[in-house]
Amino acid sequence: MSTPARLIGVGVGPGDPELITLKAMRALQEADVVAHFAKAGNPSNARAIVARHLRAEVCELELRYPITTEFPTDAPAYCNIMREFYDAAARSVGAHLDCGRGVAVICEGDPLFYGSYMHLHVRLAERYPTEVIAGVTGMSGCWSAVGTPMAQGNDVFTVLPATLPQLELERRLADAQSAVIMKLGRNLPKVRRALDRAGRLARAIYVERGTMANAASMALTAKADDEAPYLAVVLVPGWEHRATEKTTEAISEGT
Amino acid sequence: MSTPARLIGVGVGPGDPELITLKAMRALQEADVVAHFAKAGNPSNARAIVARHLRAEVCELELRYPITTEFPTDAPAYCNIMREFYDAAARSVGAHLDCGRGVAVICEGDPLFYGSYMHLHVRLAERYPTEVIAGVTGMSGCWSAVGTPMAQGNDVFTVLPATLPQLELERRLADAQSAVIMKLGRNLPKVRRALDRAGRLARAIYVERGTMANAASMALTAKADDEAPYLAVVLVPGWEHRATEKTTEAISEGT
Repeated sequence: MSTPARLIGVGVGPGDPELITLKAMRALQEADVVAHFAKAGNPSNARAIVARHLRAEVCELELRYPITTEFPTDAPAYCNIMREFYDAAARSVGAHLDCGRGVAVICEGDPLFYGSYMHLHVRLAERYPTEVIAGVTGMSGCWSAVGTPMAQGNDVFTVLPATLPQLELERRLADAQSAVIMKLGRNLPKVRRALDRAGRLARAIYVERGTMANAASMALTAKADDEAPYLAVVLVPGWEHRATEKTTEAISEGT
Repeated sequence: MSTPARLIGVGVGPGDPELITLKAMRALQEADVVAHFAKAGNPSNARAIVARHLRAEVCELELRYPITTEFPTDAPAYCNIMREFYDAAARSVGAHLDCGRGVAVICEGDPLFYGSYMHLHVRLAERYPTEVIAGVTGMSGCWSAVGTPMAQGNDVFTVLPATLPQLELERRLADAQSAVIMKLGRNLPKVRRALDRAGRLARAIYVERGTMANAASMALTAKADDEAPYLAVVLVPGWEHRATEKTTEAISEGT
């Protein structure tokens, strides 16, 4: 090889196969190896999104998470297992790169924004030519599907994991014009209480499976149960907040 | 027309013409009218991004901002001028829709995230069939170009306009694991002071013209002057913060 093989983190967007970029498509078609993370027993979402764009003869590398549900995610034993898993995954990817094969690691959403690809990036980017192709995030997919203006002008926008303590969620929700709460799952009752106490419950929107074919969304106050997938989100739009301040509604964001 | 004409907000991504989605391309090719906001004397960035994908015979509608630089953006006179401008823009778009012509409004980045399209959306979406096509945001383009892991696991991520008072910037920067500061321009000296006092200056990265051909980036501490375009950003990555906490580095984000 005259040039060393390249590692590419490829964002494939939030779920709708049409929300992939031209650049991601080209990377998939040029790669010798397409790698993806997958959970035991679960097909990779990223793999499903790009299935139609893979070359028939492409080599696929599945990086399968170890079964770790028996540990809380902050337990040292869990962290050790995951670190060893990411080390081994980086060695697998590195072995292809060493043999001159370009590797595209596909990632739902955007690779450097809450994505597993980062664990490979920090282990490999200093040793190999590396490129990252930005993707449409899951949260953009969600608010676009719902058609909800999220943030404008001088709004402060915040992404909050639902795993935070209720008091911290409350404080941060009260302090931002616009917010997304992710990783809902069993945290939904706590999130409801935090939104209520922060005065944000009335404008909260619940979105499940964002841009997938079976997407669902509703005002959170209209959701009768507390069942939520881990990847469901709550949107707290900033625009509605601003729309009540008539004098600032029209401020331009600069094209 | 058997079905009413459709309004589509089309995110065209952060600047690199290859970071447009397949869905946006299709919308551009199907639209009867392609509309874009533009400043007097400045060609539209969104228009430049999609130039190669426009049909030769497509009708273009330029929504040209009034000249308003003589007003501070919080002055009532400015707000009135802008509101009247957006009202008139919505009427222009609505006139095409009323005649049965589908209108694609192209927007840099993501339409519902700090985008001007929202001003049309809130005026028209209740009256016409409307769709929003999510795009890659400018900030994703920036951190991907730099190759900087931004947020992971339970990080709180915040977008801050540099127009906020220094003390508020300080407080919010100290309170988030990961942040993007936008609208730099003449606010850069204040942003430096806030980052320094929040203990975040050492990991701040300055990025100019994100994914454009003439992009530039550097550690903010290595930037010798305080010249910055309005659309330059400062990234404060969360990963580096986490990397010092070895026990949490390996936590998975769930594929």
